[in-house]
Amino acid sequence: MNQSESLDRLVQQFTLLPGVGKKSALRYAYAVLDMTEEQVKTFAEALVDVKNKVHFCRVCGNYTDEDVCEICATRRPETICVVKEPRDITALEKLNEFRGCYHVLHGQLSPLKGIGPDDLNIQSLLERLDGVSEVIVATNPDIEGDATALYLSRLIKPLGIKVTRLARGIPTGSEIEYTDEATLSHALSDRKEL
Amino acid sequence: MNQSESLDRLVQQFTLLPGVGKKSALRYAYAVLDMTEEQVKTFAEALVDVKNKVHFCRVCGNYTDEDVCEICATRRPETICVVKEPRDITALEKLNEFRGCYHVLHGQLSPLKGIGPDDLNIQSLLERLDGVSEVIVATNPDIEGDATALYLSRLIKPLGIKVTRLARGIPTGSEIEYTDEATLSHALSDRKEL
Repeated sequence: MNQSESLDRLVQQFTLLPGVGKKSALRYAYAVLDMTEEQVKTFAEALVDVKNKVHFCRVCGNYTDEDVCEICATRRPETICVVKEPRDITALEKLNEFRGCYHVLHGQLSPLKGIGPDDLNIQSLLERLDGVSEVIVATNPDIEGDATALYLSRLIKPLGIKVTRLARGIPTGSEIEYTDEATLSHALSDRKEL
Repeated sequence: MNQSESLDRLVQQFTLLPGVGKKSALRYAYAVLDMTEEQVKTFAEALVDVKNKVHFCRVCGNYTDEDVCEICATRRPETICVVKEPRDITALEKLNEFRGCYHVLHGQLSPLKGIGPDDLNIQSLLERLDGVSEVIVATNPDIEGDATALYLSRLIKPLGIKVTRLARGIPTGSEIEYTDEATLSHALSDRKEL
């Protein structure tokens, strides 16, 4: 498309990122051309670094550069919030409300995709339940998330630990008229006394 | 923001790209984490490569990996289209209509920014006018582009070469009601007989 092969190659690389089309990729590539050599080197190093240094926390499975992530290192796991992926932790941490620890499953149960309990990071969760008073299951509100939550609650409840799940209902700012049936049904059955 | 320093660094790097906010940068960084080591290496190399290999065509000033760009190497400069930046060539080449050569000024005249004729790639344009029948000035339709076009026409017309400029008027798909005064004024004075 361009007159430079290496420019085309970089454009191609940028289109590998989610939601980046030809046009944005070209814009990004031009921006890289406008950077100093030092800046581009830093960028390239950050790319390689992330792959070399980031791994999963030994305790909870979150992304970390260390052996144990900062959350596990500084907080007491009285309450453990179970999530599907590390990026879910980022979303929850932004609230600045939850002060407990997390546990990343790295997936959800899915018979269709052949993902069973042994494929998830569940064993290490069971091993850290000593002294835990509540497990909040924050898997996605879909069939796989439901199945995973049910499986975990059957496993953990017998140990005398409270198992809860994130509330489901109408999202803030939406309109009842346009809410899908499943969501509305949940909102109705889980209605709250005022 | 995250629990990994190197992840934060990469997010930071992605926000340097135009139009990329924290949220997109995070999405991109996660995508990089999901790539294989090989893919990330290729990406990083493409970044560094673009800075090392891409330079300006000796003849026209376009981006190229070679000494002379593909357009200059394969087309005869009977008509030369003068543009502000190499990315303008990409836009014009997409049309697949113009078969002449280009010349990149790498800027436009701007007394306010202290950019004079000597700061632009004009001398090399004058040196390649032998045998050229028309120079199309495709600078931007703004004050600086106008000034540059006027300057070039005064320089080139006396040599007996036709100097033209891209037509200005109402863009396709827009509405007259919402067209700004300057554009409408141009469209009116440059009206075309049907």
